[in-house]
Amino acid sequence: MLSNHLQNGFETAKLVWSQIPNSEEAEHEGVGLLSTSGGSSSVESLDYEVIENYAYREEQAQRGKLYVGYSVVVKWFFALLIGIGTGLAAVFINISVENFAGWKFSLTFSIIQKSYFAGFLVYILINLILVFSSVYIITKFAPAAAGSGIPEIKGYLNGVDIHGILLFRTLIGKIFGSIGSVGGGLALGKEGPLVHTGACIASLLGQGGSTKYHLRYRWLQVFRSDRDRRDLVTCGCAAGVAAAFRAPVGGVLFALEEVTSWWRSQLMWRVFFTSAIVAVVVRSAMGWCKSGKCGHFGSGGFIIWDISDGQEDYSFEELLPMAVIGVIGGLLGALFNQLTLYMTSWRRNYLHKKGNRVKIIEACVISVITSVISFGLPLLRKCSPCPESDLDSGIECPRPPGMYGNYVNFYCSKDKEYNDLATIFFNTQDDAIRNLFSAKTIHEYSAQSLLTFLVMFYTLAVVTFGIAVPAGQFVPGIMIGSTYGRLVGMFVVNFYKKLNIEEGTYALLGAASFLGGSMRMTVSLCVIMVEITNNLKFLPLIMLVLLISKAVGDAFSEGLYEEQAHLRGVPLLESRPKYKMRQMTAKEACGAQKVIDHSRNGERLVIGLVLRSHLLVLLQSKVDFQHSPLPCDTRGGSKPISHSFSEFVKPASSKGLSIDDIHLSSDDMEMYIDLGPFLNPSPYVVPEDMSLSKVYNLFRQLGLRHIFVVPRASRVIGLITRKDLLIEDGEDSTTVELQSTSSSAS
Amino acid sequence: MLSNHLQNGFETAKLVWSQIPNSEEAEHEGVGLLSTSGGSSSVESLDYEVIENYAYREEQAQRGKLYVGYSVVVKWFFALLIGIGTGLAAVFINISVENFAGWKFSLTFSIIQKSYFAGFLVYILINLILVFSSVYIITKFAPAAAGSGIPEIKGYLNGVDIHGILLFRTLIGKIFGSIGSVGGGLALGKEGPLVHTGACIASLLGQGGSTKYHLRYRWLQVFRSDRDRRDLVTCGCAAGVAAAFRAPVGGVLFALEEVTSWWRSQLMWRVFFTSAIVAVVVRSAMGWCKSGKCGHFGSGGFIIWDISDGQEDYSFEELLPMAVIGVIGGLLGALFNQLTLYMTSWRRNYLHKKGNRVKIIEACVISVITSVISFGLPLLRKCSPCPESDLDSGIECPRPPGMYGNYVNFYCSKDKEYNDLATIFFNTQDDAIRNLFSAKTIHEYSAQSLLTFLVMFYTLAVVTFGIAVPAGQFVPGIMIGSTYGRLVGMFVVNFYKKLNIEEGTYALLGAASFLGGSMRMTVSLCVIMVEITNNLKFLPLIMLVLLISKAVGDAFSEGLYEEQAHLRGVPLLESRPKYKMRQMTAKEACGAQKVIDHSRNGERLVIGLVLRSHLLVLLQSKVDFQHSPLPCDTRGGSKPISHSFSEFVKPASSKGLSIDDIHLSSDDMEMYIDLGPFLNPSPYVVPEDMSLSKVYNLFRQLGLRHIFVVPRASRVIGLITRKDLLIEDGEDSTTVELQSTSSSAS
Repeated sequence: MLSNHLQNGFETAKLVWSQIPNSEEAEHEGVGLLSTSGGSSSVESLDYEVIENYAYREEQAQRGKLYVGYSVVVKWFFALLIGIGTGLAAVFINISVENFAGWKFSLTFSIIQKSYFAGFLVYILINLILVFSSVYIITKFAPAAAGSGIPEIKGYLNGVDIHGILLFRTLIGKIFGSIGSVGGGLALGKEGPLVHTGACIASLLGQGGSTKYHLRYRWLQVFRSDRDRRDLVTCGCAAGVAAAFRAPVGGVLFALEEVTSWWRSQLMWRVFFTSAIVAVVVRSAMGWCKSGKCGHFGSGGFIIWDISDGQEDYSFEELLPMAVIGVIGGLLGALFNQLTLYMTSWRRNYLHKKGNRVKIIEACVISVITSVISFGLPLLRKCSPCPESDLDSGIECPRPPGMYGNYVNFYCSKDKEYNDLATIFFNTQDDAIRNLFSAKTIHEYSAQSLLTFLVMFYTLAVVTFGIAVPAGQFVPGIMIGSTYGRLVGMFVVNFYKKLNIEEGTYALLGAASFLGGSMRMTVSLCVIMVEITNNLKFLPLIMLVLLISKAVGDAFSEGLYEEQAHLRGVPLLESRPKYKMRQMTAKEACGAQKVIDHSRNGERLVIGLVLRSHLLVLLQSKVDFQHSPLPCDTRGGSKPISHSFSEFVKPASSKGLSIDDIHLSSDDMEMYIDLGPFLNPSPYVVPEDMSLSKVYNLFRQLGLRHIFVVPRASRVIGLITRKDLLIEDGEDSTTVELQSTSSSAS
Repeated sequence: MLSNHLQNGFETAKLVWSQIPNSEEAEHEGVGLLSTSGGSSSVESLDYEVIENYAYREEQAQRGKLYVGYSVVVKWFFALLIGIGTGLAAVFINISVENFAGWKFSLTFSIIQKSYFAGFLVYILINLILVFSSVYIITKFAPAAAGSGIPEIKGYLNGVDIHGILLFRTLIGKIFGSIGSVGGGLALGKEGPLVHTGACIASLLGQGGSTKYHLRYRWLQVFRSDRDRRDLVTCGCAAGVAAAFRAPVGGVLFALEEVTSWWRSQLMWRVFFTSAIVAVVVRSAMGWCKSGKCGHFGSGGFIIWDISDGQEDYSFEELLPMAVIGVIGGLLGALFNQLTLYMTSWRRNYLHKKGNRVKIIEACVISVITSVISFGLPLLRKCSPCPESDLDSGIECPRPPGMYGNYVNFYCSKDKEYNDLATIFFNTQDDAIRNLFSAKTIHEYSAQSLLTFLVMFYTLAVVTFGIAVPAGQFVPGIMIGSTYGRLVGMFVVNFYKKLNIEEGTYALLGAASFLGGSMRMTVSLCVIMVEITNNLKFLPLIMLVLLISKAVGDAFSEGLYEEQAHLRGVPLLESRPKYKMRQMTAKEACGAQKVIDHSRNGERLVIGLVLRSHLLVLLQSKVDFQHSPLPCDTRGGSKPISHSFSEFVKPASSKGLSIDDIHLSSDDMEMYIDLGPFLNPSPYVVPEDMSLSKVYNLFRQLGLRHIFVVPRASRVIGLITRKDLLIEDGEDSTTVELQSTSSSAS
């Protein structure tokens, strides 16, 4: 309880300990409301609302314009560091995964020359070891690194603090966990985790390393406002996408469209710079690897399924089957979201409550099932004879041992045969997608094989979703989509009998449609698909398909990330206010809170907003405790502020101060604190009868966390229009030609 | 003067005619402030502030959710129409320009076989006729179509109404004017005008055609809110860029980064759809033209300088010359901005004040000068012998007559010679750029020719800027940039002596650097450069160069569009508040207006905001005039609203009602109007002591036009946090796990 003593027109509040609610979750929402009869109000402040207290303003004022320039340089330097860091992390993950997977497949292939059963066992075992290492790391060391991390990052950038997602241990868990889970052949991808990795790297750089692991450097701690942190994490997300798909523009748009809630044009350029740095780093690393220094990491590895030699043109009659692909994508995508939602909520509520051992067993069981299916099903499939060799296409059949490519010879009786199911199933996912997208391989796959693969892989992807390993949904989505896309493409090839139709192009459209139907991304997904296939020609077709699949999907459910965020209790604010809000007032929305009762005292004046976390810092340090309820004379500046701004910043990687960390003696309980310097004196306000949809827009567009609801103003002091805001720095008169007049009341 | 009679808690204002200020400029800024002792306040409203009066809300409420669905369908349909319309306009302009220019060059080339002097005269004459037709159309018919139109469109989307920029006649003038000016060989481009064309098409579609030319269909008038209009114009801008450069993603990003001031993610997808439609239309038209139906429109025409066969890789030592290109771009770009600013202000203040005849003469003189230089300078240049023919590259020397390509044989004594200056100067700009970007043509140009061309063309571009024809700065900028880029490239080729360096790649980087240094676009320019060159490999290099050139340019001046907008008195609000605003309060900003004096009456309560233009509509219609100051009983809904919402919408293409259109008798002057239904009852408010930079952010991020400044609230009713805004449509309880508590005052 804060009892306020109102004297001299200054604000002094006696803080009484016991009634600050002891709730960890409340920490980032808790607010101390103070009221007093007068109030000195300082006006200089930055535009992000939360930490505008006096100590911050003081520090800003001391440093002035020079500091602004310095901080700009540092921000760009950090964008560079994030780009390099994320690029290197992506290269490391890719090289590791490709080497584990390549070694696994070459070992298995060499063993099955003698015994298929022994090869089977070895294959299962290697996968099991890799998956076990991943799930062990996650459960024992970095529980927050499970899953893709994108819903949590979305939540963080939307303004919700979620504990543990940006820790150093989460970063390490994410990197090594995804090497294990992807290398272990599970039906999941490494792209979502890379986005999370980029975000972690950005956040850790921003706070100057990890506190816990003694990696914290004070000179790096320039990013101390919440907004700067979020900007860095936005850069990190874009870097992650750019690294995962080698798609710098796609990364920027992903960050813009999917992740951030509010966006400033100043940030865009920096995000783009980060993405470009990632592209340079990845490109340099791949150039370095070309000389064979990276083991199995060669033509595979980084997602880029070049289909620049795909279909040259399309006819109008092809638009119908393409629209069908869009509809299928919307339906299967929405079904995927629904099924994974059931799976995840079942796991959360029953399975994972039983402890880490159950999580480990679960992942291992799924690994064995995946291995058995991916090895066993192709065994049951009869091999097909190789097609007439076409020297122009440069595609060999069967592919030479130890190489990547189409036409895998697996459990075939003759040399000149290949197993079409093994070509997609018994392969790394990158290679399988490359094979599905491949041009000039018409009739490679039978419809039966593709259907089998579609059903089995879809089921595996649903079942795998939510186990305690790092897991992205991009690559499984592309696998599923390109399979039914290729099926439709086969139908079109047979039906229209045109020579210029490529099944691979339909597989690409299928992939876009499934991702659109599941994740509901639009512009960024389009650009990512164009960048990973290195082909600008299909852009309008991809758009058409995405448009349909998103519309179909939206008719059934929300997007994958929104549903998962909802399930995990991350309160995302959507970009649109709900329809219902149009009929509500601001007063109705805040009615549930009991702040009203306490402040309905006509004599008092609200002087500002102070965060619960700041109060805790003040209580812990005790240096501001004073015996008198009168404030010290801070007006003359004689008493220096005893706190530096950095003390108030909660490190992103720790929980910050809790009420349990503070111990006050009974003497302390009688002391007073002058809260004046620590207030944000002018938070945004709305009148009580304003429509809630307007309040919502204000809240979301400005990225606020608190709005005061005040009574309707009895009088208006003035009106601010465009003209009033056209103030030039350094001069007083404006040279604007527009005139502004107003008709006014008598 | 509005005298208010405050009775029954309802608002009734007696409107007295004479004191509404008679100022056209004030129209969109004028505001009626009403005050009364009570106020019924309706809360349902949309998020765009200006036209939320009762009639609007009434219409919204009647239609409900079904109408929302209907309007979404219509909006998408319009996005389609805008895409088709802009695409067709672009195709029309391109075919016309290519045919005029192609015919001009082939005629000239055939004449100079006999007489260079006769050819010279014919060349000058054709150019003069084309330019004259353009300047005649503009001066006599569509003055608002002069220039690129981008600063004006920026202003419109920033919230400033500029008269005449979106008229039907402007559209026609823009299309035919740019055919003349570009076909006439002036140092300007058709890309900026295409953006304006797209915006005009969008705006005209949105209002259902032109009022003046009886093309207005009522059933199309669904876009009646200001926000919907601006959304449409945003789509139109993106469509224009997409059509001009065949760059759909670039178009979206251009609209996002350069044009719009505030952006909602819902809009993004629709803008992208429009851009994709444009791409499809343009592609189909080009496919149709391949069969030779479009005359000279063939390989030339649409900007796409495919350099996919350019440099494969780059070494680190090349980064230094690339950085040099960036610095040159920044310097020359800033200089260009400064010189054109002087030129434009001189034209505005002296030359163009002398009337249309001067404008026409000016354009004709510049046309003749341009013709003389582009024909005459190559005559002075000695021809070079053709290089050893290289069959692989497929480039012939000299190029066959009547074809496009490198190695133009012009005023050469031998057959196997070419004139390098004529190759770039005596050519259409598209072909010149293609030649400058071309790979495998090392040593085609001499440094002397390039330097000559650079100086002459730079001067021409500066002088041409601002004459009364439609004129874009993209293509001239690319010309200038690629020339010095190629110069640096030639130096690098000679210095590093590596075989894999292509001068064309340096020309591309030079083009990017000049545009970056002049227009200061960033992400969108990057993407446009990548899309027009169809090469993703150079993205990081383009970024590096842009980063440097923008930084260098920013050190000297503002961007081209901002400076031009400033000069034309378009008050753009930048994305950042000025540094000075941190020290100012909201009260200080609104202090200049005298609204304060009139409403400083403690007993009165502000009930809302009414626009001056709405007052004029009410005064003109007279149906709401009543004898009694008491309001009719609208509470029971017995009296129907006598105005439909559409009456209040000012058509974008006309000036709207002026005070001169209203004639009131002396009887009318004694009547009253109940303004209650026409008010926006809850505009956004800020407390008087809020920092002006916070006010600025609120204003700009929400796209507002008016903010009330109110006294500091004496009490706070409540606090709205994230949790309060998590309201689900159709249900009352939320399933959110977060807890929110607040410590409160005793």
